[in-house]
Amino acid sequence: MTKRTDMTRTSAGYFVSQETTIATDNPIATPQASPPDILRCAYMELVVTDLAASREFYVDVLGLYVTEEDENTLYLRSTEEFIHHNLVLRKGEVAAVAAFSYRVRSPEELDKAVDFYTELGCDVRRNPDGFVKGVGDSVRVVDPLGFPYEFFYQSDHVERMSWRYDLHIPGELVRLDHFNQVTPDVPRAVKYMQDLGFRVTEDIQDEEGTVYAAWMRRKSTVHDTAMTGGDGPRMHHVCFATHEKHNILSICDKLGAMRRSDSIERGPGRHGVSNAFYLYLRDPDGHRVEVYTQDYYTGDPDNPVITWDVHDNQRRDWWGNPVVPSWYTDASLVLDLDGNPQPVHARTDDSEMAVTIGADGFSYTRADENEGKLGNQL
Amino acid sequence: MTKRTDMTRTSAGYFVSQETTIATDNPIATPQASPPDILRCAYMELVVTDLAASREFYVDVLGLYVTEEDENTLYLRSTEEFIHHNLVLRKGEVAAVAAFSYRVRSPEELDKAVDFYTELGCDVRRNPDGFVKGVGDSVRVVDPLGFPYEFFYQSDHVERMSWRYDLHIPGELVRLDHFNQVTPDVPRAVKYMQDLGFRVTEDIQDEEGTVYAAWMRRKSTVHDTAMTGGDGPRMHHVCFATHEKHNILSICDKLGAMRRSDSIERGPGRHGVSNAFYLYLRDPDGHRVEVYTQDYYTGDPDNPVITWDVHDNQRRDWWGNPVVPSWYTDASLVLDLDGNPQPVHARTDDSEMAVTIGADGFSYTRADENEGKLGNQL
Amino acid sequence: MTKRTDMTRTSAGYFVSQETTIATDNPIATPQASPPDILRCAYMELVVTDLAASREFYVDVLGLYVTEEDENTLYLRSTEEFIHHNLVLRKGEVAAVAAFSYRVRSPEELDKAVDFYTELGCDVRRNPDGFVKGVGDSVRVVDPLGFPYEFFYQSDHVERMSWRYDLHIPGELVRLDHFNQVTPDVPRAVKYMQDLGFRVTEDIQDEEGTVYAAWMRRKSTVHDTAMTGGDGPRMHHVCFATHEKHNILSICDKLGAMRRSDSIERGPGRHGVSNAFYLYLRDPDGHRVEVYTQDYYTGDPDNPVITWDVHDNQRRDWWGNPVVPSWYTDASLVLDLDGNPQPVHARTDDSEMAVTIGADGFSYTRADENEGKLGNQL
Amino acid sequence: MTKRTDMTRTSAGYFVSQETTIATDNPIATPQASPPDILRCAYMELVVTDLAASREFYVDVLGLYVTEEDENTLYLRSTEEFIHHNLVLRKGEVAAVAAFSYRVRSPEELDKAVDFYTELGCDVRRNPDGFVKGVGDSVRVVDPLGFPYEFFYQSDHVERMSWRYDLHIPGELVRLDHFNQVTPDVPRAVKYMQDLGFRVTEDIQDEEGTVYAAWMRRKSTVHDTAMTGGDGPRMHHVCFATHEKHNILSICDKLGAMRRSDSIERGPGRHGVSNAFYLYLRDPDGHRVEVYTQDYYTGDPDNPVITWDVHDNQRRDWWGNPVVPSWYTDASLVLDLDGNPQPVHARTDDSEMAVTIGADGFSYTRADENEGKLGNQL
Repeated sequence: MTKRTDMTRTSAGYFVSQETTIATDNPIATPQASPPDILRCAYMELVVTDLAASREFYVDVLGLYVTEEDENTLYLRSTEEFIHHNLVLRKGEVAAVAAFSYRVRSPEELDKAVDFYTELGCDVRRNPDGFVKGVGDSVRVVDPLGFPYEFFYQSDHVERMSWRYDLHIPGELVRLDHFNQVTPDVPRAVKYMQDLGFRVTEDIQDEEGTVYAAWMRRKSTVHDTAMTGGDGPRMHHVCFATHEKHNILSICDKLGAMRRSDSIERGPGRHGVSNAFYLYLRDPDGHRVEVYTQDYYTGDPDNPVITWDVHDNQRRDWWGNPVVPSWYTDASLVLDLDGNPQPVHARTDDSEMAVTIGADGFSYTRADENEGKLGNQL
Repeated sequence: MTKRTDMTRTSAGYFVSQETTIATDNPIATPQASPPDILRCAYMELVVTDLAASREFYVDVLGLYVTEEDENTLYLRSTEEFIHHNLVLRKGEVAAVAAFSYRVRSPEELDKAVDFYTELGCDVRRNPDGFVKGVGDSVRVVDPLGFPYEFFYQSDHVERMSWRYDLHIPGELVRLDHFNQVTPDVPRAVKYMQDLGFRVTEDIQDEEGTVYAAWMRRKSTVHDTAMTGGDGPRMHHVCFATHEKHNILSICDKLGAMRRSDSIERGPGRHGVSNAFYLYLRDPDGHRVEVYTQDYYTGDPDNPVITWDVHDNQRRDWWGNPVVPSWYTDASLVLDLDGNPQPVHARTDDSEMAVTIGADGFSYTRADENEGKLGNQL
Repeated sequence: MTKRTDMTRTSAGYFVSQETTIATDNPIATPQASPPDILRCAYMELVVTDLAASREFYVDVLGLYVTEEDENTLYLRSTEEFIHHNLVLRKGEVAAVAAFSYRVRSPEELDKAVDFYTELGCDVRRNPDGFVKGVGDSVRVVDPLGFPYEFFYQSDHVERMSWRYDLHIPGELVRLDHFNQVTPDVPRAVKYMQDLGFRVTEDIQDEEGTVYAAWMRRKSTVHDTAMTGGDGPRMHHVCFATHEKHNILSICDKLGAMRRSDSIERGPGRHGVSNAFYLYLRDPDGHRVEVYTQDYYTGDPDNPVITWDVHDNQRRDWWGNPVVPSWYTDASLVLDLDGNPQPVHARTDDSEMAVTIGADGFSYTRADENEGKLGNQL
Repeated sequence: MTKRTDMTRTSAGYFVSQETTIATDNPIATPQASPPDILRCAYMELVVTDLAASREFYVDVLGLYVTEEDENTLYLRSTEEFIHHNLVLRKGEVAAVAAFSYRVRSPEELDKAVDFYTELGCDVRRNPDGFVKGVGDSVRVVDPLGFPYEFFYQSDHVERMSWRYDLHIPGELVRLDHFNQVTPDVPRAVKYMQDLGFRVTEDIQDEEGTVYAAWMRRKSTVHDTAMTGGDGPRMHHVCFATHEKHNILSICDKLGAMRRSDSIERGPGRHGVSNAFYLYLRDPDGHRVEVYTQDYYTGDPDNPVITWDVHDNQRRDWWGNPVVPSWYTDASLVLDLDGNPQPVHARTDDSEMAVTIGADGFSYTRADENEGKLGNQL
């Protein structure tokens, strides 16, 4: 990635530069095959252990719309969605992620996905009828980082609920915004994602160039997925967007009224990264769900990459409380294509938690003042 | 366009279908040359007759950021923008639009723009230094509809003000969202825009298939520009987006405090088309400016095209007052590449105003009730 | 009232002065008896012709909470209320108002109400069991202006729903804010209301001192009731408050989704008078309901009285559309204590509609510019 | 106070009862003299050590309006205020509170204040010219709890800035809402405040009846001041109200942009007590400022008193992070009438921090589950 000395410091404290190919010690070879043309993150398939409890959380509390359901599976979507679902909840023994699913631009892109991942030596499976209801011909792979990725184009269309204000709730979730993945070696992951056609929009680094996290996009938002440094492969969170900030606050208020305020793990707050207003929840299985609003347009090819100093106290929270430890340490297992949990590999680079709030960590609010330890963070 | 009988009526009252090529009696021939790959509407160059008055309106009232200015010209941008400007105000004798400017994906796309419009027999001019400050190699054309279109890739980068909350005002304008153009023959215009690579997202039709307006996009919002049926070529409005609805209301409140509430022409209100919350203002020269928030994602290739019945009272205003006549009749002149106003040609199809609020017009709020005349509109 | 020359013009265009006793040609004599100590407007009893339709409007659309209901009557309250109800809907033949009900500070105040109105020669009736459920000892009168007023102290307590965010809707109505009454002679009405202990907060006058409307309070808001000049006695509207402006907009959006947008009569907009953000609806019987937020504290004895010039375009709408004629002309009948509609007497003073938007009316947005006629109003 | 067994538990988890006279072991004798009729908390006089730094905080960051200023003193007011000021900042050696100032209903009430406090044996001083600019005849006392209280009626009037939307900022502070005081013995303090005419609206107790804090009002909001149990007399905070929640969030965003996010001590969040949305800041001297919105009307004599269980995790934060220790421990000194800091006396009852988040403390989110220790709090 770009060296700190080649970046431009902005008046707001972060740095900007143009995207470069990531240097990494242990790269995944770039395939000769072209990657599939991905439109956007489209849905996540989550395995949950108590479907009724999950239905209560996602439908009764968060208000996702039920497109279809049966004894073992729920197909849910957000207000604005016109494809069949953004979230599949499937009952199972072990809470985990069965698929991070991306929509591609046309049916033909699925052949590319097969070729791309076959060349990478991955487990690749194709099901012309789809792996879940509402979606047709699909390709599922275990990618080189160990994540179960899916690609599809065909989907049943359903009615957008955007104009159905009679059904909206104060905390209306409007769009699926992004995924977030935990992986031990962030530069290695980013380089592979660039090969897959993703563009980097933001990252967190230290002066030595250690990368703690990176955000990448296909659609013109800050991300379709992010790579967070940590023991992985694991799923960090899935995120839905609202229209306004008060929608997020009303989710908190409602959880309080239901005496479920301890479902809130972090926030609400304003991110430095992405500039979005956010909230993190934990579902009944501990899967992390973010609610988020008001990031920015990133669709130009020369969109400036934003780099935050890992010691900048305002990088993850523009204001507010320091990140809670569980947010750094907890994440969901991911499954292989046979439904077995993937083994988790430890991060060997420095951890963001250790360098910022640990015994030897430090953070600053004002870069030009003497840097301080933990006590300086609030 | 799709026939009403081949559309699906939604529970909210509008119809959906898949985009088709527009049938038109008097088509502009499709060039053999490929169109340039357009990213988004990027800026408008407006000629204003009193630069100080316009500066007060766009900078002091609306809070656009001044990137650069000199005696005759102002270069303004919205909060989120990282290219040099979204609006150029140039002092001149006749209030008019000098350019609708689109950003393309790479410098090479400019050659395509030259070829595409040359084949169409248009006046095409290229300036490697750009026609305005802050922008490099640019192509300007008078397009087959008579509009001055510009294409460019290179632009100076400036700091995004998104994190500079210390400078934000209650009515902060965050992005340039879209243009809106007045043209006599909407299907003819849409077919040409499809050739230029635009995708239709919504339109207003009657049962006979007369098209009163159509919305088209390159970026993944409802539009980068729209074609409004009327005497043209003229510029209907330029639109900036805010983050939340209260930002729009605060612009109204501020105009009241400045005793300029008569700058508000229409709204605030909720559009049926686009689902956005909106406000229309008139600048000191009468140029129309929209402020807008919360439309929806349109970036999938099979994004459903929404068709509104011209007699549906909620098509342009999901609720609220009927559209004021000036909104239908007034628009800004556009200039040719020598700076002369383009002649205006009359629409010959039915006008939306006449068929809805005129003496023989009618509108309904509930399609299943007997349709009513004007008195039924509010 | 204070003469224009003794008022101070503010930077915002309205005038301030200290409250004085109203001069009126035809005063109602001030009783020797002390008036009851009124706390606040507490509830309205409305006669509706189709209880199911009214229930749908007030409960399903507006989200009022049902405290109790039977075949002929609905007892409704807003989120924050801890007394039994803020609105009683009673089925009847003629849509009308049966009572404007005020809560007094203690049971003893009811004796004062009896004495006060008896001395005024009014029809006075007392029911120790209350005239409606949930309310105890009550006094009802036909006041000197012809309105059915009620006074009570005792009420059953119910749970405040303020913390029950799990039940809140986007358009949550939080409090009963005020009544608004139509009466032919405003100064005469105001003088009587001052005798009853009300304080004037705002009014609309012309330079000659003709009073078009006045706002009066007991609780520390802009009003508990207002007197609007027109043919009366009639009920102009009953108003509920929301917390935020988006709550009001979401009521509009919901009405659109229900294809009931024609229930909106005026607004949403910002009042000049009161500074509140507002919306006017018409219920299935045509009873007018306002939704309103963010007026200001008025509880100090020297709270400045605000006077708006009737020709100031921003007096009723700080920005936005001119007041629609129906808002000036339509109002609900009120009943005497036997349930018979009160006869309506014509206003003889100038009407606000005539002097502002009528053929000879005029309005201005900027007082220092030449005044204009109708065309200048938007 | 009412026993837990005589309270009614609500569906939201708190208890309601009717106000009773507080039982206290060590009561301050009730004077024979009538207390002054207090309208509302009106202003605080704060001693600050660096007037320029304080001006930047209160004027440049928080946007209070400067009514008047000289070398040593700043007179500030919120948007809606029509009296001279809500906050006086006076330069001095020791950061402290010089006066908690209340407005009374008439000039005559000042005599009552003199008699009331003289009978209580307090230091009482009267200055017919006022102790600060803009305010006339005033009485200052050191009250029996050791706090410097002021009473006044006369004040210069200034223009309300409510309609001056051209001057408003995103974080506009609309009203002075309340004070909050730290005192060792809460029941003793509350009983004295009841004698002074205050009404209790909410409190925090444990099952044994230990009172940790109480909220009391004169105007019809949840409080004009609160008594927080702790070492005192000290000033806990002064609070201003905004109109909407996003106004509070924008203060946070602005502090981030100014790299002053460490001025935020607690929040933003939703209180259980008062139901308000809030934020706590620390000014350059460490004086605590709250910003707050959307509590509820309390003006009826039988307004239910709300009691929160001290172990209810949602009592102070309906959701969100546990209260930070500094919020419990830090507070500002208060001065006697000669300007000397008052000695601070230790609380001897249990501290709220110790019983909730200390080593032996516990809190619960759901009362019907087994109670838990700290780990259960979030």
